[in-house]
Amino acid sequence: MSSAITPRSLDYSKWYNELVISADLADHSAVRGCMVIKPHGYAIWENMQRALDDMFKATGHVNAYFPLFIPKHLFEAEEKNAEGFAKECAVVTHYRLKNDPLHPGKLIADPEAKLDEELVVRPTSEAIIWNTYKTWIQSYRDLPILVNQWANVVRWEMRTRLFLRTAEFLWQEGHTAHATAEEALQETRQMLDVYADFAEQWMAVPVIKGVKTAQERFAGADDTFCIEALMQDGKALQAGTSHFLGQNFAKAFDVKFASKTGTLDYVWATSWGVSTRLMGALIMSHSDDKGLVLPPKLAPLHVVIIPIYKGLQELENLVKACEPLIQELKQLGIRVKLDTRDTQRPGWKFADYELKGVPLRIALGLRDLAQHQLEIARRDTGVKQLILMKDAPEIIKSLLNEIQDGLLQRARQRMQAMSHYVDDYETFKSKLETTGGFIYAHWDGTAETENRIKEETKATIRCIPLNNPQESGTCIYSGKPSTQRVVFARAY
Amino acid sequence: MSSAITPRSLDYSKWYNELVISADLADHSAVRGCMVIKPHGYAIWENMQRALDDMFKATGHVNAYFPLFIPKHLFEAEEKNAEGFAKECAVVTHYRLKNDPLHPGKLIADPEAKLDEELVVRPTSEAIIWNTYKTWIQSYRDLPILVNQWANVVRWEMRTRLFLRTAEFLWQEGHTAHATAEEALQETRQMLDVYADFAEQWMAVPVIKGVKTAQERFAGADDTFCIEALMQDGKALQAGTSHFLGQNFAKAFDVKFASKTGTLDYVWATSWGVSTRLMGALIMSHSDDKGLVLPPKLAPLHVVIIPIYKGLQELENLVKACEPLIQELKQLGIRVKLDTRDTQRPGWKFADYELKGVPLRIALGLRDLAQHQLEIARRDTGVKQLILMKDAPEIIKSLLNEIQDGLLQRARQRMQAMSHYVDDYETFKSKLETTGGFIYAHWDGTAETENRIKEETKATIRCIPLNNPQESGTCIYSGKPSTQRVVFARAY
Repeated sequence: MSSAITPRSLDYSKWYNELVISADLADHSAVRGCMVIKPHGYAIWENMQRALDDMFKATGHVNAYFPLFIPKHLFEAEEKNAEGFAKECAVVTHYRLKNDPLHPGKLIADPEAKLDEELVVRPTSEAIIWNTYKTWIQSYRDLPILVNQWANVVRWEMRTRLFLRTAEFLWQEGHTAHATAEEALQETRQMLDVYADFAEQWMAVPVIKGVKTAQERFAGADDTFCIEALMQDGKALQAGTSHFLGQNFAKAFDVKFASKTGTLDYVWATSWGVSTRLMGALIMSHSDDKGLVLPPKLAPLHVVIIPIYKGLQELENLVKACEPLIQELKQLGIRVKLDTRDTQRPGWKFADYELKGVPLRIALGLRDLAQHQLEIARRDTGVKQLILMKDAPEIIKSLLNEIQDGLLQRARQRMQAMSHYVDDYETFKSKLETTGGFIYAHWDGTAETENRIKEETKATIRCIPLNNPQESGTCIYSGKPSTQRVVFARAY
Repeated sequence: MSSAITPRSLDYSKWYNELVISADLADHSAVRGCMVIKPHGYAIWENMQRALDDMFKATGHVNAYFPLFIPKHLFEAEEKNAEGFAKECAVVTHYRLKNDPLHPGKLIADPEAKLDEELVVRPTSEAIIWNTYKTWIQSYRDLPILVNQWANVVRWEMRTRLFLRTAEFLWQEGHTAHATAEEALQETRQMLDVYADFAEQWMAVPVIKGVKTAQERFAGADDTFCIEALMQDGKALQAGTSHFLGQNFAKAFDVKFASKTGTLDYVWATSWGVSTRLMGALIMSHSDDKGLVLPPKLAPLHVVIIPIYKGLQELENLVKACEPLIQELKQLGIRVKLDTRDTQRPGWKFADYELKGVPLRIALGLRDLAQHQLEIARRDTGVKQLILMKDAPEIIKSLLNEIQDGLLQRARQRMQAMSHYVDDYETFKSKLETTGGFIYAHWDGTAETENRIKEETKATIRCIPLNNPQESGTCIYSGKPSTQRVVFARAY
């Protein structure tokens, strides 16, 4: 554990950066823009992966794996997609290094091992996957294809931040193929719902489900659906996207299927993804000035027991007294650890587990033990209570549920408190400067207005919410008529 | 399902290639040497991953993630390692594509986006990880570090084969750091045992545990331990390696720790890995001319139920009759599927599930149903039996255990039958040409002899078995004295 981190009120951005590093979640690496995900951070990501993967499989999907590299000519095939990602692609040009004749001990890319065609490190896999689907799909019998891939991707971002925006990141990308537009659209919406459920039920992060404006669409999509979350500083974070790709990739890669009646038609497609960016959303949603706060469902450790003792004999007695409790907790599926390290004092351990976000902390001394009780402290509220040892398993189980629910509740309240209905541009700008948050405002539907607002205020249209109430009004910027409010915010 | 595959007796190599593709395990991709792992193949790999990951965690390891790219100067740091992998590295030289001014719609690597320093796509991660460990390790309190990573790596192999040797492959790589040589060596041996246990208990593949000769060591290791398996055609396959890296990487990256007494010393290291190559070993160990044979512990599906019916009403009756059985099987943790597709006939389905290696197949018709019985067929032996429906769950459970044990037993017998003790070079060569297999022979311990034998026979020293009986003899090649036999074989 390092020294205290900068409070949120002083500098939210600095708080986040320091928290990620000091809570051992991730760190910068020797590679520009690429992070190292440390064991504590990775354990949380593994819990996310497991939960999402179960949800994907429960909705009929299977996993597969496609190549890291995309030959340039395939990457070019879907023009909009290529244009959207070309500016941030890592490009492999050589397949061998050789000794540098000028500098002994140094290596250079061997000029004789230049590739005939460059390989793009996948920024997303539509191109390589649809080129493969061409060989998988002949008839309606081969549809739907419901495939997901867990993979690393690379987008050469200029400004990077741990988890939020890194040159390499980990994600899952679903790629499905369907016989009809309706079915593909239904899949797109289903996966958006899966993401929203995951965000709320596992991450305790409430989200708005919506659709992106034409400008903010995924390159190559006909429609991009998204979930948008709100961080404590009033900035929005796009937490997941689900794309209706129409027949764009089928046309680019010539993927047709024979229907039951024998007619040939292009296949309909979706793709959908969430990434290690979710870690950023999770961290920023719940944590405080003492460090990380984690929803129990995703916490690598639920309860830590810290013995308070002098000398080995006292420690032994405490350890022995804890054993039945630990066994019982494990049987309940509760992840528990007894920290017997003698290299650190209890006070240091308290602060360290707070920093790392363990939901419950038990302190156990000999005096407590004599009275068959222990002290349990909640990480989220800081509330401590003395409870009888025999009641501990039941109480711990119910506290974990309370914490999970409480975090979602609190985040929901915050989102509500930070959602503003604004009808004029001056108020809009002043809201952005003061409270931030989601701003529901009328927009005339043009890209021009969207761009002007973005240039002038750095706020973007996060989405047009699904099931949006229709309401006539006038655009806050142009004064032109509008039929619905859209959600603006400054965003990560 | 495609048409029948080439029998093993005709062309083992062709049999393997056709099997991998027709059983929907993997396929070639548009990227030279890179494969697509199809859902059926990936589901088996996922089962492998889950089992291995549990074993790693049970032995105290945690997962983390390090960058895909290694800056060239870091890659160069450990000389032997760099030399060993330089010839097969994919090299990233640019971070942007731009429109090709000469060919509208085409892209080229933007010359203005050339990297100052090339990035190597990791062929293995020691360099980037030890450069990171430098910042994690100051004192003995920071040790040991027991980290594993699941990742993709790239080695530009010239001759590739699905699963066995591909330019990109998936693997896990453990990288541990220790205060003493003894502890590091113990870790190296422990992980070798984990691999051997996994191969035998999950894959039903018996292995020899041994140590590599100096020539066959991992580049940068002081010692490489390995598990070697034997395929049906008498060729060996290296299934996993565990390296004692000494202080080589600690010295290359200047990673020192302060001991309890305050002295500074370089850290001791291990690394160990298994890859999607294990899929090749699994496929080649048990499968036959009808297709894949899978050990139940790794089979994505344990039992398939195929209804034999005419018309929807009969199907409905059969489905209804199966429901309680399916529920009961699921409760026992048995993965079961009822295939009600009306697009394919039962005979086609039988052959398809044989091809894909489902361990048990149930055929259920109305006449069986009337007698409360069903027909169950084993994939491994082909034996069919009629059993009472009420007995099915117990019988299925026990059959799955029998199949798992039987496959290991059979593979053990084959390995034993194909292990030869040979004392002269002529017999050695003739064994290689006829039966193949593991050949235990005396070797004089020199690289020269090792190389000559390799050149003349294509056989390599697979390993010096652990706990090798000491026995005086003479080298089959040079006639010089030797104290133990080593294991030769032609290998994948």
